[in-house]
Amino acid sequence: MTRQTRADGSLRHLLTLEGLSRTELTMLLDRAQEYVRPLGVRPPVSRALAGITVANLFTEPSTRTRVSFELAAKRLGADVANLEMQLSSRTKGESMLDTVFTLESLHVDVFVIRDAEAGVPGAVAASVAPHVSVLSAGEGSVAHPTQGLLDALTIRQRKGRIAGLTVAIVGDIRHSRVARSAFHALATLDVAELRVVAPAALLPGADEFRGAARHTDLDAGLRGADVVMMLRIQRERMQDEAQLDAAEYFREFGLTSERLRLAKPDALVMHPQPMNRGVEIASDVADGPQSAIRDQVRNGVAVRMAVLATVVRP
Amino acid sequence: MTRQTRADGSLRHLLTLEGLSRTELTMLLDRAQEYVRPLGVRPPVSRALAGITVANLFTEPSTRTRVSFELAAKRLGADVANLEMQLSSRTKGESMLDTVFTLESLHVDVFVIRDAEAGVPGAVAASVAPHVSVLSAGEGSVAHPTQGLLDALTIRQRKGRIAGLTVAIVGDIRHSRVARSAFHALATLDVAELRVVAPAALLPGADEFRGAARHTDLDAGLRGADVVMMLRIQRERMQDEAQLDAAEYFREFGLTSERLRLAKPDALVMHPQPMNRGVEIASDVADGPQSAIRDQVRNGVAVRMAVLATVVRP
Amino acid sequence: MTRQTRADGSLRHLLTLEGLSRTELTMLLDRAQEYVRPLGVRPPVSRALAGITVANLFTEPSTRTRVSFELAAKRLGADVANLEMQLSSRTKGESMLDTVFTLESLHVDVFVIRDAEAGVPGAVAASVAPHVSVLSAGEGSVAHPTQGLLDALTIRQRKGRIAGLTVAIVGDIRHSRVARSAFHALATLDVAELRVVAPAALLPGADEFRGAARHTDLDAGLRGADVVMMLRIQRERMQDEAQLDAAEYFREFGLTSERLRLAKPDALVMHPQPMNRGVEIASDVADGPQSAIRDQVRNGVAVRMAVLATVVRP
Repeated sequence: MTRQTRADGSLRHLLTLEGLSRTELTMLLDRAQEYVRPLGVRPPVSRALAGITVANLFTEPSTRTRVSFELAAKRLGADVANLEMQLSSRTKGESMLDTVFTLESLHVDVFVIRDAEAGVPGAVAASVAPHVSVLSAGEGSVAHPTQGLLDALTIRQRKGRIAGLTVAIVGDIRHSRVARSAFHALATLDVAELRVVAPAALLPGADEFRGAARHTDLDAGLRGADVVMMLRIQRERMQDEAQLDAAEYFREFGLTSERLRLAKPDALVMHPQPMNRGVEIASDVADGPQSAIRDQVRNGVAVRMAVLATVVRP
Repeated sequence: MTRQTRADGSLRHLLTLEGLSRTELTMLLDRAQEYVRPLGVRPPVSRALAGITVANLFTEPSTRTRVSFELAAKRLGADVANLEMQLSSRTKGESMLDTVFTLESLHVDVFVIRDAEAGVPGAVAASVAPHVSVLSAGEGSVAHPTQGLLDALTIRQRKGRIAGLTVAIVGDIRHSRVARSAFHALATLDVAELRVVAPAALLPGADEFRGAARHTDLDAGLRGADVVMMLRIQRERMQDEAQLDAAEYFREFGLTSERLRLAKPDALVMHPQPMNRGVEIASDVADGPQSAIRDQVRNGVAVRMAVLATVVRP
Repeated sequence: MTRQTRADGSLRHLLTLEGLSRTELTMLLDRAQEYVRPLGVRPPVSRALAGITVANLFTEPSTRTRVSFELAAKRLGADVANLEMQLSSRTKGESMLDTVFTLESLHVDVFVIRDAEAGVPGAVAASVAPHVSVLSAGEGSVAHPTQGLLDALTIRQRKGRIAGLTVAIVGDIRHSRVARSAFHALATLDVAELRVVAPAALLPGADEFRGAARHTDLDAGLRGADVVMMLRIQRERMQDEAQLDAAEYFREFGLTSERLRLAKPDALVMHPQPMNRGVEIASDVADGPQSAIRDQVRNGVAVRMAVLATVVRP
């Protein structure tokens, strides 16, 4: 695995939350909290990253995450280039690296990379010059570290703490980079109990999610939880692997307001979006008073600002 | 219809010019006039919208209008994100609104929306948080309010006034949002006579364009006009509804320099672009001394700056 | 040919390097050298082009060159609009010019144009208002002037001079705008010997590359050279015209480390990218100590900044 830190221990890349210490995670969350602002309030103009160039390399379409990174970079005064180059480790590795070296020579200082397959962000991070940083914006089913941070930040804001809480993650855990990064953050931040809840075919392998409780029954998974994180389910997976159609999936694993009553009365409901309303989550729950879904999006910009400001040296 | 104004009467959204008072229209035109500058003269650097984020959501391709809004926003110091998200009221309304709420949570303050069908800008305006504004950049055949304003501004610049003029709008009135917004602006600003000129099949319904004279003969429609606004004709409409091919259309409804002599000697020629030269307008007229077509484009940036500066609260 | 200079002799457009004097080329290179900075060093914030709008009109995909121009413009404080409009002289010339006039009316001050066919940048330059400049970012096989400048700058940096050197350009000379612009720059800057090396079918016409030595044998072309500029070869051309497959091409015209020994011991290796590794150049040569390929990319940004700062009047 590519090292994320410099020789002096400072964070250089952010490819995964796995291996970050409690102190490192807490510093990132604290820094992000400083960038959180209420909607409609104009931000103080920052030029902290003036002269820095951030390249968004997204080989999977994701307007939402791309715009979140783009606005985070612009709000710190960085220049942003959006690129549609193919960066695939399936194609000849050298031509992928030629592209990266070209951008590096164009004075790109930070690469934000999203790719549907595992390995690309790490391969780029292992190859770039020492002053360049690589941020994963989603890598296969491996990791989505800024999503994990924004999930942790959202819980901390709304619950006051993470330590001691019971968190249930529900959905296609097996293929979910969101679940993996949430697990890495929350386990390190001393969550009391982490539960993964899914149809048996969508539970993770036995060597993953160490210490997490596994449930194939949603009711059992929800009982007494402080936080319920619902995942987006892909229709193909639901049918091919879980052998359920949308209506059956909703009946067995969809979060309704009735079911939510099994969790603590003030349990938080989260979702990384985009939602399949009526498949993994009922509309009234998504829009209800316990939902923190919009907070997650707002916190995403703050987290990305914090990560950019952390990896770029002054 | 979605209300465009705040409780204190100030303009919050711009979805249509219908219902705006003479005072409101005049204030927008006056403000736009302040932003007009000769080509090649560098603008004073403005940071009036620094910290504000404008999202361009165009589901219909229109590079021209998108760039006009984008440059207007940048010249006021705003951050701009261009998005290609689908925003359709045909797809499940909730998922459209999820997209909007996500962008709102990313601190988008102004949505600029262009959509081929009616209803989307109003539905978004009805749903966003109180600090957010929605500007229509073209909605089906319903309205194109900034185009109506730039048309009015162009006439006022070149004729010194709008009140008392005779204006002929020629082409596919029935399907034209440009014609509708021009009508709303010009009628309120006391045009003396507004004429709509089209093949019978492309004239508007009887309940629309109240007070406008209807002509199916171009010569009669042009006679004595101060301003001639030509519309772009779409080939399918011409053939399916007007039952004319391009050559016939040009013969019956195309503006030639000969025909233009029927209007006042100093009559202004306008076109919202892109033009079908040789179909609705002859090249020598489009490029001739009476043409204000390039002024319209230049005024479009000024109008969009004025609208942005008006709807965003300091 | 469209004139590139204003009445006072100052550079207004950059369409070709042909006809630029040694003094003009040297001034551009000197100015570019001031903008060169080591990777990872933050640039001084420049607002020299604040209020200026640069439009990138690329009808051929070229993320690399587009991003290079975009970052060059942004680093001088200009606003940049990326456009995907079709600009073809094959389509009716008037509609191409309507697009250009529209952008001009939107206060575009500099057009950066890349097009696969000859003639478009010149036609636009001949039509725009006096305050507007046009920069070619690659025109058919005619010219790629900023590439020629960055090649000259790279040689000057690494060799200390251009005058007196022997430079071999190898590959599909006949169809290469890169070779033509390099030839124009290097001949004017008093290169001692310029060689074009290609299969007979890919050598240029007899009336071009005046004074250049022609070689169809790579070894002869390389012998004693100070600089070896390899060109990208397109597979169709290789097969249709040179009658070689990729392996044969590499055997006859590919630059290997063994062959490179025929050139001077400190000979510089260059390539405009993207490279076909193993077709026109061996990987170890591309990445070896004599390669200046990454310098070329970095110098490209500096050259484009210099050209922008030169053509835009203060």
